[in-house]
Amino acid sequence: MDVVPPALARLIEDLHRLPGIGRKTATRLALHILRRPAAEARDLARDLVDLHGAIHLCRNCFAFSEKDPCVICGDPGRDPALVCVVEEPADLMAIEKTGAFKGQYHLLHGVLSPMDGIGPEEIRIGALLSRVKKGTVAEVLIATSSTVPGEATAAYLISRLQGMQVKVTRLACGIPMGMDIKYADDVTLARAIESRMDTGKP
Amino acid sequence: MDVVPPALARLIEDLHRLPGIGRKTATRLALHILRRPAAEARDLARDLVDLHGAIHLCRNCFAFSEKDPCVICGDPGRDPALVCVVEEPADLMAIEKTGAFKGQYHLLHGVLSPMDGIGPEEIRIGALLSRVKKGTVAEVLIATSSTVPGEATAAYLISRLQGMQVKVTRLACGIPMGMDIKYADDVTLARAIESRMDTGKP
Repeated sequence: MDVVPPALARLIEDLHRLPGIGRKTATRLALHILRRPAAEARDLARDLVDLHGAIHLCRNCFAFSEKDPCVICGDPGRDPALVCVVEEPADLMAIEKTGAFKGQYHLLHGVLSPMDGIGPEEIRIGALLSRVKKGTVAEVLIATSSTVPGEATAAYLISRLQGMQVKVTRLACGIPMGMDIKYADDVTLARAIESRMDTGKP
Repeated sequence: MDVVPPALARLIEDLHRLPGIGRKTATRLALHILRRPAAEARDLARDLVDLHGAIHLCRNCFAFSEKDPCVICGDPGRDPALVCVVEEPADLMAIEKTGAFKGQYHLLHGVLSPMDGIGPEEIRIGALLSRVKKGTVAEVLIATSSTVPGEATAAYLISRLQGMQVKVTRLACGIPMGMDIKYADDVTLARAIESRMDTGKP
């Protein structure tokens, strides 16, 4: 006999489906929500429902945004000639938090991973190349994570940008090998942005 | 300038309010939900809204349940003369998972904590005493956690049950001091139920 009421079991299953949430944590969260006032659960539910309706991809940089272009691409104080390529929104947030970057972004929403069927077409590399071909971009700062797929993606980007009239830079050494950039501390990340390296191409 | 879209920021705040969910984890979860199909967010939202409406407290044992009495109190195979007192629903779930207990429960939904203003009236001790006074309960098995407030609550219960025509037992030694019972492994917990100790009262 299952002693967990079905409505509670369904919520536990939903929460357990989220990344990094085990069954015990999901149970603890669901019981907490049940003990708190119903209004709090309704607030969370409303914000969940609103999320996908309110947020879209910026047509220029593919960041999640309620506006198109996004607040960064639409800001005249940001330099459109400097484009920072990141894997995902959390990376963008980590870089913005340092305040060390005044250009625009390009979000790949992934990394090259041939084993998982993720090729250049899946991660918006074509859109980046089109953006560079328009001639308004002077420098592409590649800020993929220093993981194996992140490095492979960076190497692929460098090869594709070779020969185009654009400077290609990378975040400076200082980020430990194997560390995901969204977990780097602000000071390390700011220093890596300031001392970004030239790849020697073109 | 805040680069997190407001709809995303609201969801991050909601998730950050849950216990054990820091801001980075909340951000990671919210971005995951945003990347997944909108239908999954709607499912989670629906289950959150349904939760409080569907689940109530069993009038006999105060367990969360969609039925009243709950599935345990309504099961003729469970012995109403044996009542296990637990702090919270997660403890009940942990005991049920062992399959070693065939009686009914009484949920306190808390422990005595005078510093937080939690006295006997706040944790349904009166309802337990009323249940015992009806004369149908032969044994009360106290299964509060072996933490300081859990032990204090057990001691208070033993003193209040003293003199009533009921056997008072506790979970056997075997659970390490300071461990919350919902994190004990099944075998240890089952053994503790089987070899429960008599407190010598009455």
